[in-house]
Amino acid sequence: MKGVIMIIDGMADRPHEKLSGKTPLEAAETPNMDRIAESGVNGIMDPIKPGVRAGSDTSHLSILGYDPYSVYTGRGPFEAAGVGVDVKPGDIAFRCNFATADENLVITDRRAGRIRSGTSEIARTINSMEIEGFEDVEIIFRESTGHRAVLVLRGPDLADSVSDADPKSEGKPPKKVKSTDGSPESMRTAEILNMIVERSYEVLKDHPVNLKRISEGEAPANIILPRGAGAVPDVEKFQTRYGIRAACIAETGLIKGIGNLTGMDVIDVEGATGGIDTDLDGIREAIISTLNDDYDFLLINIDGADEAGHDGDLEGKLEFIEKVDAMLGDMPEMDDVCFILTADHSTPVSVMDHTGDPVPIVITGPGVRVDGVKSFGERAAAAGGLCRIRGSDIMDILLDLMNKKDKFGA
Amino acid sequence: MKGVIMIIDGMADRPHEKLSGKTPLEAAETPNMDRIAESGVNGIMDPIKPGVRAGSDTSHLSILGYDPYSVYTGRGPFEAAGVGVDVKPGDIAFRCNFATADENLVITDRRAGRIRSGTSEIARTINSMEIEGFEDVEIIFRESTGHRAVLVLRGPDLADSVSDADPKSEGKPPKKVKSTDGSPESMRTAEILNMIVERSYEVLKDHPVNLKRISEGEAPANIILPRGAGAVPDVEKFQTRYGIRAACIAETGLIKGIGNLTGMDVIDVEGATGGIDTDLDGIREAIISTLNDDYDFLLINIDGADEAGHDGDLEGKLEFIEKVDAMLGDMPEMDDVCFILTADHSTPVSVMDHTGDPVPIVITGPGVRVDGVKSFGERAAAAGGLCRIRGSDIMDILLDLMNKKDKFGA
Repeated sequence: MKGVIMIIDGMADRPHEKLSGKTPLEAAETPNMDRIAESGVNGIMDPIKPGVRAGSDTSHLSILGYDPYSVYTGRGPFEAAGVGVDVKPGDIAFRCNFATADENLVITDRRAGRIRSGTSEIARTINSMEIEGFEDVEIIFRESTGHRAVLVLRGPDLADSVSDADPKSEGKPPKKVKSTDGSPESMRTAEILNMIVERSYEVLKDHPVNLKRISEGEAPANIILPRGAGAVPDVEKFQTRYGIRAACIAETGLIKGIGNLTGMDVIDVEGATGGIDTDLDGIREAIISTLNDDYDFLLINIDGADEAGHDGDLEGKLEFIEKVDAMLGDMPEMDDVCFILTADHSTPVSVMDHTGDPVPIVITGPGVRVDGVKSFGERAAAAGGLCRIRGSDIMDILLDLMNKKDKFGA
Repeated sequence: MKGVIMIIDGMADRPHEKLSGKTPLEAAETPNMDRIAESGVNGIMDPIKPGVRAGSDTSHLSILGYDPYSVYTGRGPFEAAGVGVDVKPGDIAFRCNFATADENLVITDRRAGRIRSGTSEIARTINSMEIEGFEDVEIIFRESTGHRAVLVLRGPDLADSVSDADPKSEGKPPKKVKSTDGSPESMRTAEILNMIVERSYEVLKDHPVNLKRISEGEAPANIILPRGAGAVPDVEKFQTRYGIRAACIAETGLIKGIGNLTGMDVIDVEGATGGIDTDLDGIREAIISTLNDDYDFLLINIDGADEAGHDGDLEGKLEFIEKVDAMLGDMPEMDDVCFILTADHSTPVSVMDHTGDPVPIVITGPGVRVDGVKSFGERAAAAGGLCRIRGSDIMDILLDLMNKKDKFGA
């Protein structure tokens, strides 16, 4: 028996007046999701707890059975793991922007003209830097999508209690990074970061990629701005914890990072953009082939509905949900699979950000106590047989249905 | 957006045979509460956890997001704060009765003939006492309603691990207060209390108020009987915790004390008796004017249904619920308000005390996922979209709907 959790990121929503008081999921034509709801047990789920506005990262951790309040140290470590840095517990990870500075180091563009190509060459230059006096600290730097990148510091006596270099607005120089707790490790880390920011301008200002950009009238990516320091947590591997082989299909670096840090095999899907324009056919093929492979567990995250929610794009969200539904209709029958369809949080188009509302969840598979719910939606699910559960309940419920749990007691 | 929690104290109940198996709330004519249920999301709530018989104090603490198991040290501190004593963390607070003793200090009336007037003069006499040998301990004494009063000891080396002086029945002298844990602080506190009880007879037996009572054939209030020692807890202020300005409209000292101790502005309402004879018009006016004021949050407690429950007064409870419903019907439309209507616990008339049954709850306001529930009642609510939540979830849910919560994660 295999277990599959499919998370449609940010799919849940609030009633919308343009949909006569329905949510996008309720208003969308979703015959396949409805069929799944009809053949399963439904409920609502608080990813963390009622009213808590979960991030995608903290919600996924909770759903995978990890306590986000103890494991989550910030976005940096997950982003870094997501772009393929083999992070290790104790590493200090940062999210970075490629930015443009003038000769006085005043930031003139926080996103380096929304640079889209050449960042891997620039990243290699930073990655090979050494900081004088701190040769025991390894600098790992990797480009992410667009103007985004990650920086990882590895070495002795480092700490994540440091402020951001990113000034958050243009016309200012990078902020001096400071210790936020006065510890010697954080003061040392701040000093290293300040030197990296300064040195990045020196090694990048005449970088071939930038000379070409300047000649073409584009803003050069000649400085890096780290922010969001986080110490890489010591996360128990999924397979160690549950004794099952796990794979992860995700579109965004953040969720790929969750897969990497928990020791799952992260399956890359070409054409998976994380937007509403993503290649759902490609994702479907990847799901089918991964399920035919030798895995016990598959985590799937599809991101477009969340993006549409953040953009306040009602039409886009509704249409994307219908596309995901169509993709589900094209999936072959899966025997001996315990399948969970849910969201990681609500991203109401009316709020354009995550909210703490519960999300609908349905579980299908052998042994499930099928209830009377006939459609998949926030309110229909609330009448289902699962009642109201939490993200942290999911792995226990799934492993029990997969007959992979030990009995507690006699 | 403002948040309002209206708690109809003890409103929830159990099915009653005289109501053909309905509860008083189900049997009462409550068109306005039904309208609120119809326009909101409903559910049942365990104020603390399922089956726990919550007090009004512990339930309100839980609903306000405080853990009663760590904050609640007994009723004394809340009663004291409720009658206007500016209690400080570490003070030891007691509930007291004014009682009648004979010349051998045998209690002849535990309630001093249910004294109703003159208690403030008597309280002033106690309040100015000094206990020989313990001049470093300040004695703060304040009358409450009827024969009730509060005593607060402030000073070094005091503890609340002491027994009661109240013998709980007549024909006996006050009990000698003893340390319950043998600590030097509690032995010192017990010694002080025994001296206060003894001294109270000396300073009160010829008090003008008592001489007058004796001349009129009434039992004098010539001794005080402390009980229920509690060290005043260090409660984080509501505004510090949530960043919102809060007011409290309550009838009883206990709930006013919760408001005071959590740093809310407590609004006094003339004519609010805490009984079924209370002035609901006055309460309604206070609610409206407080909502027009500059507050983000308003806690309202209306106590009559609880009193009727304790008295086993089925008719009285049902009628009072209908009066509250009429009051709700006279409230103006509130835009941009997230409104929660619930109870703090069940006080079934058949039990005449609090029970651990869950209570109905409805939440209305922008963004709420209105469900199909058409009436407000214990069983109707259980079919609603909130399913079953806990008191400790309420502030998270409310602040999320008010868009005043930070996101946890990315």
